[in-house]
Amino acid sequence: MKRVYNFSAGPGVLPEAVLKDAASEMLDYQNNGMSVMEMSHRSAMYQKIIDDAEQDLRTLMHIPDNYKVLFLQGGATTQFSMIPMNLMKKGVADYIVTGAWAKKAASEAKKFGKVNIIASSEDKMFSYIPDVSDLKISDDADYVHMCDNNTIYGTKYSKLPNTKGKILVSDISSCILSEEIDVTQYGLLYAGAQKNIRPAGVTVVIIREDLIREDLPVNTPVMLRYDIHAAKGSMYNTPPTYGIYLCGKTFKWLLNLGGIKAIHKINVDKAALLYDYLDQSKLFSGTVDKDSRSIMNICFKTNNPELDAKFISGAKQQGIVNIKGHRSIGGMRASTYNAMPVEGVKALVEYMKMFEKENLK
Amino acid sequence: MKRVYNFSAGPGVLPEAVLKDAASEMLDYQNNGMSVMEMSHRSAMYQKIIDDAEQDLRTLMHIPDNYKVLFLQGGATTQFSMIPMNLMKKGVADYIVTGAWAKKAASEAKKFGKVNIIASSEDKMFSYIPDVSDLKISDDADYVHMCDNNTIYGTKYSKLPNTKGKILVSDISSCILSEEIDVTQYGLLYAGAQKNIRPAGVTVVIIREDLIREDLPVNTPVMLRYDIHAAKGSMYNTPPTYGIYLCGKTFKWLLNLGGIKAIHKINVDKAALLYDYLDQSKLFSGTVDKDSRSIMNICFKTNNPELDAKFISGAKQQGIVNIKGHRSIGGMRASTYNAMPVEGVKALVEYMKMFEKENLK
Repeated sequence: MKRVYNFSAGPGVLPEAVLKDAASEMLDYQNNGMSVMEMSHRSAMYQKIIDDAEQDLRTLMHIPDNYKVLFLQGGATTQFSMIPMNLMKKGVADYIVTGAWAKKAASEAKKFGKVNIIASSEDKMFSYIPDVSDLKISDDADYVHMCDNNTIYGTKYSKLPNTKGKILVSDISSCILSEEIDVTQYGLLYAGAQKNIRPAGVTVVIIREDLIREDLPVNTPVMLRYDIHAAKGSMYNTPPTYGIYLCGKTFKWLLNLGGIKAIHKINVDKAALLYDYLDQSKLFSGTVDKDSRSIMNICFKTNNPELDAKFISGAKQQGIVNIKGHRSIGGMRASTYNAMPVEGVKALVEYMKMFEKENLK
Repeated sequence: MKRVYNFSAGPGVLPEAVLKDAASEMLDYQNNGMSVMEMSHRSAMYQKIIDDAEQDLRTLMHIPDNYKVLFLQGGATTQFSMIPMNLMKKGVADYIVTGAWAKKAASEAKKFGKVNIIASSEDKMFSYIPDVSDLKISDDADYVHMCDNNTIYGTKYSKLPNTKGKILVSDISSCILSEEIDVTQYGLLYAGAQKNIRPAGVTVVIIREDLIREDLPVNTPVMLRYDIHAAKGSMYNTPPTYGIYLCGKTFKWLLNLGGIKAIHKINVDKAALLYDYLDQSKLFSGTVDKDSRSIMNICFKTNNPELDAKFISGAKQQGIVNIKGHRSIGGMRASTYNAMPVEGVKALVEYMKMFEKENLK
C-alpha cells in the first residue's frame, strides 16, 4: 500500500501516526477489552479521554480559564445559527464577508436579527482580505463576525479587525492550530474539526464564559444552547465519542511535535516552498493578493483551464490527489494542513516544475 | 488481548468483524491510498460509501421509495426539536410518555406548540407500556409521538398505538434493526446510531416525502430543516463521514447474517436465555411487566441494593461489564443489542447462576 499525498480541503489528510495508533487500538483500548467506539460516554475511561482532549487543546492554544471549550456536532453551519441565537441581545451584528462561508454565516444570522455587512471582498471574487483597520462598527452591534481563513479562495487575515470594543467572533475552521493566536482577543472561536483537527462530525467551540446566556427565548432548541452544553461538559446527550478521541490524538501529536510554534514554522516553510515557486513561475500564478495569502489553502492556476485540467489529471499519476480548485473559482488548490508532510509539498513543487518545463511554450 | 462482554446501553458493543475490517482499512481504503476519514465528502469514492449505506439500510428495512433516508448529526435530542419544528402545522401534537426520553421529547416539543400527553406509564416508574389501543387522539394533532423501546427501563411496545389516522412518529434508537417493522405505518422514524447501528455521532431519520415541508417559519435554523438535508442527500454540509462508513459496515454485516429476520431470531433467543432464567430465579427478578419486555435492554435486580452492587463488581471479574442499571432505577441492565454475541448472554446467565447459588439464603 502506498499512501497518496492528499491535498483535500476537508475532510483531508490525517497524521499517519494518528491513524496507525487508532488502528492498533480499534479492538482494545489500553487493555480495557473494548474499542473507544464501544465505551459508554458516562464511563470513567471515556471521561478521561474527553478531559485529556480538552486539556491538551487548552495547553496548545493557551486557552484561559474563563473560556469554555465545547465539543459539539453539526459543523460550522450549526454555529452560523447558534451564534446569533445565543449572542444577539440587541438583535444586531456586524459581519465581514470574505468568502462563501462568511456570506452563509451572515445570511443565516439575518434570520435572527439585523445584520450589517461592514466589509466585503466579493467585488473581486474574494481574492483579498479587505482593510479592517477602521471599520464602521455599528453602535448597537452585539458582536463582529469574521472568517479568518477562507478555504475556497486561499485568503487569510494578516491582522485582526479593529472591532472598537465589540466582541469578536471568528470561524477558524481551516486555520485552527496552524499558528499561535491570542484567544483573549475573541469572545467566541469555532471550528469544524474536519479540516485541521479531524475527523468530520466534531465542532470545537471556545467561548468566553460571560457570553454564555441562560435568558434565551423559550423556543430555542435545547441542542442550540451554549449554556446547556457548557453546564454538561459537552455531554448533555451522547457526544461523537470516537471523533473526540481522534481529535485528542491529533492534539497529542501536535504537543509531541513541540506545539503550535513548532507546527507553525513547518507550515510557513511548506507554504514558502509553494509560494516561492509560484512567484517565479512563468506558467503558474497565485490567485490572491500577496498580503492576504493563506498558509493552509494555496490557490493557483495556469494561463488556461485546459492546462489546469491536464495538470490535475497528471498529478494523480504522481500520487498527488485532490488538487482541483473549488468549482466556483476553478484552477488548483493545495490544502497544506498540519498533517500534510513537507514531502508532499516538495513532490507537488517537483511535479509543477516538470509540468512547466513540458508545457510552457 | 481479551475482549470483554460489554452490555453497555450505548454507546455499546460493535461486531468484532466490523472493528477488524475498519482497523485493516484505516490507512488505506480499497487501494485509494487514504483512510475513509481523509476523503472529501464530495469525492466519488465517498459518495459510493454513503449511497451503499443508504441502499443497504433500505434493503434491510424494506424502506419504500416515497421515504427519504437521512444521515444527520446531533442525536435523538436534536430530533426532539426538529420534529415539532418541521411537522407541526396546526401547532398541536400528541405524545405518549413511556420513559425519560419520551418525556424529554414531549418537553422539547412544548417549546413549539401545544403538546397533549395522551398516555403515560410514569405512575409506575415506566415499568410497563400503557394500553394504546384506544387513545384520546386530539382532533387537531399534527402527529402522535412514541418511543418504541425504552432503554432505561427495558420496555418495548408489543403493538403500535392506534393513532386513528394521525401520523405516527417513533424514536427507535434502541430497537432499530433488531426486528422487522412495517415502515409504511410511520410518518417519521428516527434513531441515534450509538445503540444498535454505531457509532455515536450519526442520527438516522426515515421520513415520508410528503411530510417534508419547505414552508417553515423563516427563522428556522438551516440545519434543523428536513427539506434542506433531503434536497442535498444528507450533504448540505460535511456529514460525519467516518461514522456513516461504520454504519454502512454494520448494515453489510447484518445483510451477510441474513437480514433482520435472522438477527431478530438471534435476539429473541438471547433474550429468552435471560428472561427464562429470571422467571425461575429465586434471587433475581425482572423489573417490568412481562408483556412490555424489551429484547434489547433487559432490566433485573436482586432483593437488595447491596447484593446488586456485589453482583455488578463480581461481573467485572468475569469480563462482563457495564451491567449496572441506570442511576434512576438502580439494579442491573443487560443491553443485548445486535452486536452482543450469544456467548456473552450465556456467560452472563452462568455467572448469575453461580452468584445465586452463593448468595441465596
